[in-house]
Amino acid sequence: MYKHILIAVDFTEDDRLIEGRAVKMHEFTQAKLSLIHVIEPMPSIYGDSYGVYMQPEVNLNEKATSMLKPIAERLHIPAVNIATPSGNVSHEIIDYSDENNVDLILMGSHGRHGLRLLLGSTANAVLHHAKCDVLTVRVSD
Amino acid sequence: MYKHILIAVDFTEDDRLIEGRAVKMHEFTQAKLSLIHVIEPMPSIYGDSYGVYMQPEVNLNEKATSMLKPIAERLHIPAVNIATPSGNVSHEIIDYSDENNVDLILMGSHGRHGLRLLLGSTANAVLHHAKCDVLTVRVSD
Repeated sequence: MYKHILIAVDFTEDDRLIEGRAVKMHEFTQAKLSLIHVIEPMPSIYGDSYGVYMQPEVNLNEKATSMLKPIAERLHIPAVNIATPSGNVSHEIIDYSDENNVDLILMGSHGRHGLRLLLGSTANAVLHHAKCDVLTVRVSD
Repeated sequence: MYKHILIAVDFTEDDRLIEGRAVKMHEFTQAKLSLIHVIEPMPSIYGDSYGVYMQPEVNLNEKATSMLKPIAERLHIPAVNIATPSGNVSHEIIDYSDENNVDLILMGSHGRHGLRLLLGSTANAVLHHAKCDVLTVRVSD
């Protein structure tokens, strides 16, 4: 059914749920898996997923890549299929999907900011613009 | 992975795509399948999916049920797992899912009204409120 599944993670506890679904969907489909984490350029006022809030000199790209490594290892995803673009989360996920013939995007149903009622969630934005199927995994609020 | 998949159809040509995904997901998961079509109480200004625009006396519920029959037969869904509630589409899908322990909602990514930019799509509304995973199938605009 699906040939290329893109797994979007955001370094929250929800990633384990998403990873579990990815394992199952891969079992079912034998699809190629890719992994993406989008680095948001603006520092979050609610905290910092990278643990480098006070150290702006740290290379966020390297940090994100090293945080993706254990997930990629568990899912047997080679480095060439891992992306850590910077920018707007939904735009980057859509761009990667379009450029790499992704036919299923797998992601959590919530952003981590708690502002989704105001701004709309990342999942909603992806759904709105995706040219492929989207499987949103229900994660905690 | 999934034990009860709810398939939401809207009697457009997109239903065939959704049905195809349902067949595959059932193959993968052996989940119980249920089928829903929500009857919108307001007549559409853009047309009429039921073909009864000029015959308001026709029972829409019966009409919808008979239109669901061939889909249900192809998917081997018994009558007891078919629902044709009337009301707001996303609310009814969510209510059915909550009341029947649905763990995956399978639906098209677009409403059929062409107003989704203004009003938000049905899929977005479902995604926003669902307590389970949602697989949105990319359908034509």
